[in-house]
Amino acid sequence: MTTGLQFPLQRLATGLLLLLSVQHWAESGKVLVLPTDGSHWLSMREVVQELHSRGHQAVVLTPEVNMHIKEEDFFTLTTYAIPCTQDEFNHLLLSHTQLFFETEHFLKKFSRSMEILKNMSLVAHGACVELLHNETLIRHLNATSFDVVLTDPVYLCGPVLAKYLSIPTVFFLRYIPCDLDFKGTQCPNPYSYVPKLLTMNSEHMTFLQRVKNMLYPLALSYICHAFSAPFASLASELFQRAVPVVDILSHASVWLSDFVKDFPRPIMPNMIFLAGINCLLKNPLSQEFEGYINASGEHGIVVFSLGSMVSEIPEKKAMEIAAALGKIPQTVLWRYTGTRPSNLANNTILVKWLPQNDLLGHPKTRAFITHSGSHGIYEGICNGVPMVMMPLFGDQMDNAKRMETKGAGVTLNVLEMTSEDLENALKAVINDRSYKENIMRLSSLHKDRPVEPLDLAVFWIEFVMRHKGAPHLRPAAHDLTWYQYHSLDVIGFLLAIVLTVAFIAFKCCACGCRKCCGKKGRVKKAQKSKTH
Amino acid sequence: MTTGLQFPLQRLATGLLLLLSVQHWAESGKVLVLPTDGSHWLSMREVVQELHSRGHQAVVLTPEVNMHIKEEDFFTLTTYAIPCTQDEFNHLLLSHTQLFFETEHFLKKFSRSMEILKNMSLVAHGACVELLHNETLIRHLNATSFDVVLTDPVYLCGPVLAKYLSIPTVFFLRYIPCDLDFKGTQCPNPYSYVPKLLTMNSEHMTFLQRVKNMLYPLALSYICHAFSAPFASLASELFQRAVPVVDILSHASVWLSDFVKDFPRPIMPNMIFLAGINCLLKNPLSQEFEGYINASGEHGIVVFSLGSMVSEIPEKKAMEIAAALGKIPQTVLWRYTGTRPSNLANNTILVKWLPQNDLLGHPKTRAFITHSGSHGIYEGICNGVPMVMMPLFGDQMDNAKRMETKGAGVTLNVLEMTSEDLENALKAVINDRSYKENIMRLSSLHKDRPVEPLDLAVFWIEFVMRHKGAPHLRPAAHDLTWYQYHSLDVIGFLLAIVLTVAFIAFKCCACGCRKCCGKKGRVKKAQKSKTH
Repeated sequence: MTTGLQFPLQRLATGLLLLLSVQHWAESGKVLVLPTDGSHWLSMREVVQELHSRGHQAVVLTPEVNMHIKEEDFFTLTTYAIPCTQDEFNHLLLSHTQLFFETEHFLKKFSRSMEILKNMSLVAHGACVELLHNETLIRHLNATSFDVVLTDPVYLCGPVLAKYLSIPTVFFLRYIPCDLDFKGTQCPNPYSYVPKLLTMNSEHMTFLQRVKNMLYPLALSYICHAFSAPFASLASELFQRAVPVVDILSHASVWLSDFVKDFPRPIMPNMIFLAGINCLLKNPLSQEFEGYINASGEHGIVVFSLGSMVSEIPEKKAMEIAAALGKIPQTVLWRYTGTRPSNLANNTILVKWLPQNDLLGHPKTRAFITHSGSHGIYEGICNGVPMVMMPLFGDQMDNAKRMETKGAGVTLNVLEMTSEDLENALKAVINDRSYKENIMRLSSLHKDRPVEPLDLAVFWIEFVMRHKGAPHLRPAAHDLTWYQYHSLDVIGFLLAIVLTVAFIAFKCCACGCRKCCGKKGRVKKAQKSKTH
Repeated sequence: MTTGLQFPLQRLATGLLLLLSVQHWAESGKVLVLPTDGSHWLSMREVVQELHSRGHQAVVLTPEVNMHIKEEDFFTLTTYAIPCTQDEFNHLLLSHTQLFFETEHFLKKFSRSMEILKNMSLVAHGACVELLHNETLIRHLNATSFDVVLTDPVYLCGPVLAKYLSIPTVFFLRYIPCDLDFKGTQCPNPYSYVPKLLTMNSEHMTFLQRVKNMLYPLALSYICHAFSAPFASLASELFQRAVPVVDILSHASVWLSDFVKDFPRPIMPNMIFLAGINCLLKNPLSQEFEGYINASGEHGIVVFSLGSMVSEIPEKKAMEIAAALGKIPQTVLWRYTGTRPSNLANNTILVKWLPQNDLLGHPKTRAFITHSGSHGIYEGICNGVPMVMMPLFGDQMDNAKRMETKGAGVTLNVLEMTSEDLENALKAVINDRSYKENIMRLSSLHKDRPVEPLDLAVFWIEFVMRHKGAPHLRPAAHDLTWYQYHSLDVIGFLLAIVLTVAFIAFKCCACGCRKCCGKKGRVKKAQKSKTH
């Protein structure tokens, strides 16, 4: 159905189309980019590169201590100091990923997890305070006259700064916890069929799943408050008035996101969906990887990576995994930087890094073992590769559940699974044709769209620059109180009228009846007294 | 900002892009088109023409008695008999438009209006019965193996037939009364900021306007029931089970519509917006019209049309209008087939038909006098021409209100206005620069989009053909009851638990207190008796 030529041609056509938008936007724009570190930066980076190639100037503003955001030739990097050294930062991240594999008691693990989260929040908040109180930098940013701010709102410092600088803003996000996306866009969010983050519910829920769907956000509200309140205080301090988080987020003109992964639900006109922005661009494989694939014979290969955050795991778990991998005929390319498991079979090759999307795009790739992060899931879908999913944290559990619901893969609990579980899961997704068919169907739906996501992202950023925001896409709901939004005042007013009318009618009837009865009574009495 | 070359180039690019979709869709598709007559057909006709030019075969199925749907070379016309002659049909339509200008008492006019509506409904329903009971035709349609049905759901017969034939369906609509679009797509519909049809509210409403917004749908529910119930009965008879209207409408895979004209509000992922599909294609003006424009001098022209339904008006009103038109220095091109008003000034030219969009696109056009139908409004916006609006019926009042709110025109009540009102309105929109600036801003926002609406329409129709529907865009809300949708069962359950726990806690406390007090009481009593 799809030819190899089609996608390059499609890119060419959308490129031509968007080139006309650049023509439309006569001068080059100035874009202030406030990214969120980690894998979030990976897709935003591609958008910044595309903006540069269309003649815009991007300034990327980031803490001097970070993971992936380094100097590149398509943007100007501006850093600011934060109250944390690179070592402390790395240690914090490592403790977060290591904690996952520790087999402590749930409550102890939860309390340590909360502690790490609190420390991370402190660092994030501290960095934001440093940034917003850096008067020289703020003056410089004000003087630069940026046309648009591009930021990932999962780190709320970007939205606060954008609002403070009063620059039209585009949010670029993968997901945001605590339903802040719904709140910030005034988007309806029915609990009955929109599965909440971390519930692992699908859109079709049983009664008890719907109860869970309603209780989860309540249970998480403490964490949500801890996550967002410091930034609301910071904004309130800057603006010298109470600024709730929703106000900070509602400053955005357009939300470019891939957070609606699968289940159809209400959206707003300023939400633009770019799912899979990362899997369009492909590079040829290096000789090393071509070699592995050619040597794999008719059985082909399996790609295995637990994402950019996790590159090593406890030895015992690694050995269990290695044992399972040794029992399939495919060659396994495993991104792993830890100690080599002693039982590693000949078919398994450890690599420090792998070109994940390019490998998944190879016709000899039979399966993908993934932690089911957003990027990985979309690369699996784009390339039509069935998945064995080992979700670790965040939205990964939900992602895995969604793929499993669609019959495109198998989910394993990496802590509890045995070697046999992994072996069986791999054999199932490789040999049972239904997994391949389901992922191919998803792939063909996903790739069938009128505009490529990268072009769409750039279109909307330029749109906001051209029109100095997008006030025509801002719903009037932002200007209503919660009771006005739900028409409670109108309902109360109408109810009061109905009740008043009913009361008066009742009183009139009662009075009429009394008069009538009274008259009759009097008449009867009179008649009685006459007859007596 | 925009060059003359840009839009043809943009069409070329989107054309190339969509051509790739055709490549994607290897064979040509068979499209069954069930249009709604009148101006609704005018934009659907363009989509059918585009489908034909991309290699698809379209069969247009329509009653043999109709207004505008005639044989053309880009589709096969199939007609079916209806229980009404062309004369009766024309008379019915004429009585509808004539009624508007009659100056009877409101109640009398309302009752006549209801009678005409009832007669129209009877004809529409009768036609549908004829179609659905025409066994030969239904057999033929079944045998043809259509890939997709394209229909305008404002005439509910199309959706009923589509569901009956079990063919994936795309709705193409301009507007649909009684919030059936919200119901059919399970789209949330907040009363607090989404203005209801006929209320003439804007998105920013006062308290009383919000009360009106809530009461209007209640008041119109009788008419809504009369409009839709006959088709629900027809469907129930066909399917041998109760089929509510929402079920008929929820059969559609994709809704291509321009019914979100302006105010941002919740939408669903299968709603695709194509506003202004009719104003992209332009033809050169004929010598006759070029002549009028050239002769108009520096003052330019004013275009005046009350739409395809109304081409003549009562003589007195026509004379009032003619008097006003004579007082402006512009040349007025007036589409009018009635008797020539005796006071017609030299600057006013009566024509039986005019190329509205081409004239509005001419740089010498200063203003547009319109009944503010959907097509006219968009042609005004696309071409950036300020408007004097004289809404007559249907959604026209709302359209006019929306343009007025945005400062792009002036609304007049055609029954109550004086000659001076029209003169002043015309002079205002022509001489007050703010009207031109506002409509130009609207125009630039409206035309700035990543894909042209005609291409988008064709893309989604082909998408539904390629994937045999779009079940991945169907929200799970369709499978919930109303109380499940609003989580009333979950809320009730949780409330019951909270109340039970509170009740038990209260009882335990009360019991504890009693025991405690009882003991104390007994102790006190014992102490008392000892001391005594």
